[in-house]
Amino acid sequence: MQIEGRNPIKEALSSENTTITKLCVQKGAHDLQSIIDIARQKGIRIDFLDKPRLDSISETKHHQGLIAYAENFKYASVDDILNKKDGPLFVLLLDNIEDPHNLGSIIRVGECLGVDGIIIPNKRAATVNSTVIKVSAGATSYVKIAMVNNINDVIRKLKDNFVTVVCADMNGENIYNAHLDGDIALVIGNEGDGVKHLTKSLCDKTVAIPQFGKVNSLNASVACGIICSEIVRRRIK
Amino acid sequence: MQIEGRNPIKEALSSENTTITKLCVQKGAHDLQSIIDIARQKGIRIDFLDKPRLDSISETKHHQGLIAYAENFKYASVDDILNKKDGPLFVLLLDNIEDPHNLGSIIRVGECLGVDGIIIPNKRAATVNSTVIKVSAGATSYVKIAMVNNINDVIRKLKDNFVTVVCADMNGENIYNAHLDGDIALVIGNEGDGVKHLTKSLCDKTVAIPQFGKVNSLNASVACGIICSEIVRRRIK
Repeated sequence: MQIEGRNPIKEALSSENTTITKLCVQKGAHDLQSIIDIARQKGIRIDFLDKPRLDSISETKHHQGLIAYAENFKYASVDDILNKKDGPLFVLLLDNIEDPHNLGSIIRVGECLGVDGIIIPNKRAATVNSTVIKVSAGATSYVKIAMVNNINDVIRKLKDNFVTVVCADMNGENIYNAHLDGDIALVIGNEGDGVKHLTKSLCDKTVAIPQFGKVNSLNASVACGIICSEIVRRRIK
Repeated sequence: MQIEGRNPIKEALSSENTTITKLCVQKGAHDLQSIIDIARQKGIRIDFLDKPRLDSISETKHHQGLIAYAENFKYASVDDILNKKDGPLFVLLLDNIEDPHNLGSIIRVGECLGVDGIIIPNKRAATVNSTVIKVSAGATSYVKIAMVNNINDVIRKLKDNFVTVVCADMNGENIYNAHLDGDIALVIGNEGDGVKHLTKSLCDKTVAIPQFGKVNSLNASVACGIICSEIVRRRIK
């Protein structure tokens, strides 16, 4: 797996989820010494390459003079996420987010707002790749991400564990009035189609963000941020 | 100005802010008949082009078979935005948002959450172009956007009109506890540097979203969405 850009590589170097095996550095690029020093301390092989060579191997086309090769992303297990020692659980379930930019943004939102983990399906959905890592601003290094065969089985398991499963849906209850206490899993649906019918029917409740415009469709990561923030607000009140 | 993609062009066709002068349609593309019909009704010239030709003139590289040419974006004036008849004012001031994707996302957030207008600077910042229109999902057609020489002069004017000017800042007061009633203008800063020192010093207060992760930096449009949602929540409570 390739990781590109200064912040994502800096985060990956200090993360337990990622093992960097090689670092490619653009010859003559400025302000990279601190990252090079950390990589040297960790005994990581460093290659110095010309800019055109880096450009040609870059997947994101925004490498900022740095491309790292890492062992494949280490997914957590669902049990890793559920085994929380103290405080109420806060989990995101992503029902087929397809755009790696949206997945990266949602991971960044989740990490910043303190979720315990993010669960994604392994089919018909974006998984953690170099674009996701870059867009997440390195958050993939700090938040547990589990990949599963079937999101619906996870919802059943969460409900068996008395976790309230809340589905984001345009026709749901006003988020500001909804009961959102205790252990919560929030389900965010596909960018175009929302949460699948069966998945929605398994959830304990659906919630919506009141909207007042004509476009009436918030981006998935913005909607996720607003609902997560409302859950956080109740907890720290 | 070029507008690309199905939804942005559909929105533009029904908007008062935009006058489309020509529509280019990909030969043989599916599901475009309703848009073609609307354009025909409005007497807009329609050219049918091969996909490679559309690809070559596309600026966003995601034209979805449609590229329209429109008269330049019609900005509103600050007075247009401030002349609100009823209900408390809700304005966004963007202090040098540089990335057109972020500007487009913020316009989409503002339109969905019902702001009365968005004020942007005319220097060192993204302005409304085809990328912004596309990312905004057509919201540029429905929300008033004013472009000004100096954001600080607007802040002084707003304060003279008893509008509370609130600045989003990492070190601000917890957004959930802040007083956010009445007429409000929310200032969102540059992606890297935040709100400029002088601009911040002119504001009535600074507010922050509590964060719990290690990355600790929400994307500008997500942060904007969370703060706008908190303002909306207080209003509809």
